[in-house]
Amino acid sequence: MLISIKTHLSYTTATSCSLLLQIEAAQDIAQVCESSHFTTNKDIYWNIIPGEENIGLRRWGRIEQTFECVYEAKVRVQRPVSDLADLAAHDVTQLPSDVTKFLMPSRYCFPEAFLGFVPEQFGSLAGGALIAQMSDWIRENFTYDICASNALTTATDSFQAQRGVCRDYAHVLIGMARSAGIPARIASVYGPAVNPQDFHAVAEVFLDGAWHIVDPTGMAHPSEIVRIGVGRDAADVSFMTSYGWMEMKKQSVDVSFIA
Amino acid sequence: MLISIKTHLSYTTATSCSLLLQIEAAQDIAQVCESSHFTTNKDIYWNIIPGEENIGLRRWGRIEQTFECVYEAKVRVQRPVSDLADLAAHDVTQLPSDVTKFLMPSRYCFPEAFLGFVPEQFGSLAGGALIAQMSDWIRENFTYDICASNALTTATDSFQAQRGVCRDYAHVLIGMARSAGIPARIASVYGPAVNPQDFHAVAEVFLDGAWHIVDPTGMAHPSEIVRIGVGRDAADVSFMTSYGWMEMKKQSVDVSFIA
Amino acid sequence: MLISIKTHLSYTTATSCSLLLQIEAAQDIAQVCESSHFTTNKDIYWNIIPGEENIGLRRWGRIEQTFECVYEAKVRVQRPVSDLADLAAHDVTQLPSDVTKFLMPSRYCFPEAFLGFVPEQFGSLAGGALIAQMSDWIRENFTYDICASNALTTATDSFQAQRGVCRDYAHVLIGMARSAGIPARIASVYGPAVNPQDFHAVAEVFLDGAWHIVDPTGMAHPSEIVRIGVGRDAADVSFMTSYGWMEMKKQSVDVSFIA
Amino acid sequence: MLISIKTHLSYTTATSCSLLLQIEAAQDIAQVCESSHFTTNKDIYWNIIPGEENIGLRRWGRIEQTFECVYEAKVRVQRPVSDLADLAAHDVTQLPSDVTKFLMPSRYCFPEAFLGFVPEQFGSLAGGALIAQMSDWIRENFTYDICASNALTTATDSFQAQRGVCRDYAHVLIGMARSAGIPARIASVYGPAVNPQDFHAVAEVFLDGAWHIVDPTGMAHPSEIVRIGVGRDAADVSFMTSYGWMEMKKQSVDVSFIA
Repeated sequence: MLISIKTHLSYTTATSCSLLLQIEAAQDIAQVCESSHFTTNKDIYWNIIPGEENIGLRRWGRIEQTFECVYEAKVRVQRPVSDLADLAAHDVTQLPSDVTKFLMPSRYCFPEAFLGFVPEQFGSLAGGALIAQMSDWIRENFTYDICASNALTTATDSFQAQRGVCRDYAHVLIGMARSAGIPARIASVYGPAVNPQDFHAVAEVFLDGAWHIVDPTGMAHPSEIVRIGVGRDAADVSFMTSYGWMEMKKQSVDVSFIA
Repeated sequence: MLISIKTHLSYTTATSCSLLLQIEAAQDIAQVCESSHFTTNKDIYWNIIPGEENIGLRRWGRIEQTFECVYEAKVRVQRPVSDLADLAAHDVTQLPSDVTKFLMPSRYCFPEAFLGFVPEQFGSLAGGALIAQMSDWIRENFTYDICASNALTTATDSFQAQRGVCRDYAHVLIGMARSAGIPARIASVYGPAVNPQDFHAVAEVFLDGAWHIVDPTGMAHPSEIVRIGVGRDAADVSFMTSYGWMEMKKQSVDVSFIA
Repeated sequence: MLISIKTHLSYTTATSCSLLLQIEAAQDIAQVCESSHFTTNKDIYWNIIPGEENIGLRRWGRIEQTFECVYEAKVRVQRPVSDLADLAAHDVTQLPSDVTKFLMPSRYCFPEAFLGFVPEQFGSLAGGALIAQMSDWIRENFTYDICASNALTTATDSFQAQRGVCRDYAHVLIGMARSAGIPARIASVYGPAVNPQDFHAVAEVFLDGAWHIVDPTGMAHPSEIVRIGVGRDAADVSFMTSYGWMEMKKQSVDVSFIA
Repeated sequence: MLISIKTHLSYTTATSCSLLLQIEAAQDIAQVCESSHFTTNKDIYWNIIPGEENIGLRRWGRIEQTFECVYEAKVRVQRPVSDLADLAAHDVTQLPSDVTKFLMPSRYCFPEAFLGFVPEQFGSLAGGALIAQMSDWIRENFTYDICASNALTTATDSFQAQRGVCRDYAHVLIGMARSAGIPARIASVYGPAVNPQDFHAVAEVFLDGAWHIVDPTGMAHPSEIVRIGVGRDAADVSFMTSYGWMEMKKQSVDVSFIA
């Protein structure tokens, strides 16, 4: 399916500041950009670096006074989606070495917080079947609430509050998965069915030798998701990190299917 | 200088469990192993994987009932040590792409917690001079206290309590450095002057194109440190992570200079 | 299936020399070591480093006078094998960035040598169907001949001679695949049906988002292969590279199914 | 010093073809882009991927009929340059694991071809002193000759002919260095003193824990070189690799000091 993305950011800053931007669709066999335009103030030089795990790209720039940026792309998504229930977990001792880091506690996702709950709630389930149940449990028990969390909110906090936004849902699933010895990470994505339209975040779990997307909010199906980047949790995939204070003038994200 | 290391671990477990072990000296130009012996129960097969950032190595094993392990090594350390005050910070926009991750918040080190304190306390200092002052400040103001922290204690907690152990000292320095746009990470190490003898942790900061060791506890000088591994913070460099409950029978670390 | 491996190397050297050894089974979800023993002269300190692409491991050691080594392992292989004909090639512009290097000419495999032959012989075939035909063509047209090649023999040479050993067969397939825009690399492996028993080499091609083993000699089926390491071609996966002259006393490889 | 770069490429193609382009200055602490503009036909979508070793970047694009591209940048180069004679070689057994691959034979650089010549010509020299002598020897004995080599010419060929262009000079130095156990790779670069102006190639050697640029042609000093990318040899750093036939209309490189 063909998906159209338009992102518009406009900020001002009193002093010059450095900016790390990560808003462009990654390229891979599952999502091919048919067109892509990134336009910005003429005076900014962008240093492009790869995203974490060499997925997607990020831009470092130095901003004076104003920052204006429009990103427009058309992306064809053809992602084969496995039935989670068919996917087996790895014995942790056999994981690829590069995947091991995604078992560890990270800024927002502490697996130890779920060591009691997970076996109690999900019993002897394992692998993809366990992940599917975790995701369902979160969706059924959580309330989507944009006022319930902020930049300090961890998976542990969200689990207690049982409310939050997409990244909180993803963080809880990541924490639960890691507690069961299943490597898990976050992906920042665009999704056409995300409502209200905004940058979106989902979880990815490592099962049967590959990473699989899971969205515990249920708002985006893996077959229609456009990935931007991945990381241990939201700390790694901010769409914008500034070294200095910036004031938002406008920020919009429009993602839609092209008939 | 030649350093002798002997580590002895002995644990029991009621059920079989998986173990990730990271206790062996890394090899690099600054620290060369002249001998090294790792002995363990005969029945454990160890899957060896590289450490984070491809520094050092880790072992995955599956334990039944008892885990006994002795590691003995002689390591020649010849690490050129720069004067911190001479080292310049990078503009964040020019950092090598693989270093960017060490600016981000991690499990125990949230740079945002220090955004007010650092400029207020250290004014216009920058680069290595700033790091040296941060390290001095921590050493002068903190009390070494093995009862003050546990596996949940963050740099923010330690900063408030102004007490903790080596990893807490390192975490606070890492958080402060990141808040100033200086990439920082943890290193798990052996140090002959560490008292009481145990696994030790120090900070590393990225200045002038290279990583530099800084020990805010003052217990270990970079010229005599033997590195085991590195990571974003202590979550990445545990000497032992078990997937299941293990009971400690014995754990000893002996590090000494060989005359 | 469970596979038993026993490798025995015995060499002497007049002067001390450095050695890079790569003979141990890699660990991954498709091949799990149930036991593994590596024994060698007591006086050698081995510095263990990851193999290329972080697959498997290698050992650096310093040898004086004699080098004796016995490696014994039992490996359970459960590798799902896809039908090559079902696998699609990637558009080169969408390849994962880490895979791009395996399109490039390497020591023994020059894709340009096959730019004429491949379309002429295989017409409009593409993807896995093309690879399968290339592999069949090599097996049908080549003569296995241990006297036909040496350490200088390239894929171009082997293609002209239409004879060689396992690594020459693999090199020709790698060169052909790259010439068609399909990333290809070598894997050093153990195979129970390899006759005469020795270290074996096969090709791997990147199709449908994953690496797939292909053995143009037909001696080893992907489902029963134990991988040691991978690389651009045989230059990267020698079982032993010495920096100094060594004389072989004994070298044996025994691989068999365990009933 | 501030260096201006302008590269202009213009090609046509009868059929659509895929293109891998690597012409933009890498960013690092030693070379900071003050401005950078890459302009091309409107209809090409560029998939940006990191260069080898995560240095610099490359672009994949799909070309129909015409390809036109102008790259203009101003780069401030501040590269501290060590005296080669002061730099020690590593014991190969202590090399960082990621550096090991640069000891191995590659497409154009076979270390075995120099195993006799190097000790005979350079005796007991080692480390940076050896590299300096090798580079001097090449410069003194080779004739710069743009007709002496082509895309098939190896370091072995150039060594026999004692003539070639920049990449041949670099290849010979790389082959010699590897034969002495010193890791060596190629860097594609811009140099303001290169005459006639064109893409340039130099060698890099790994000594004392870091990569150091060496230009055996003597045309470019490390302090004024702008690096584009690195690789095992010229096969990895082509400014342009096309999958399909392209006809050159114009190709110009202008590099100069800005007063």
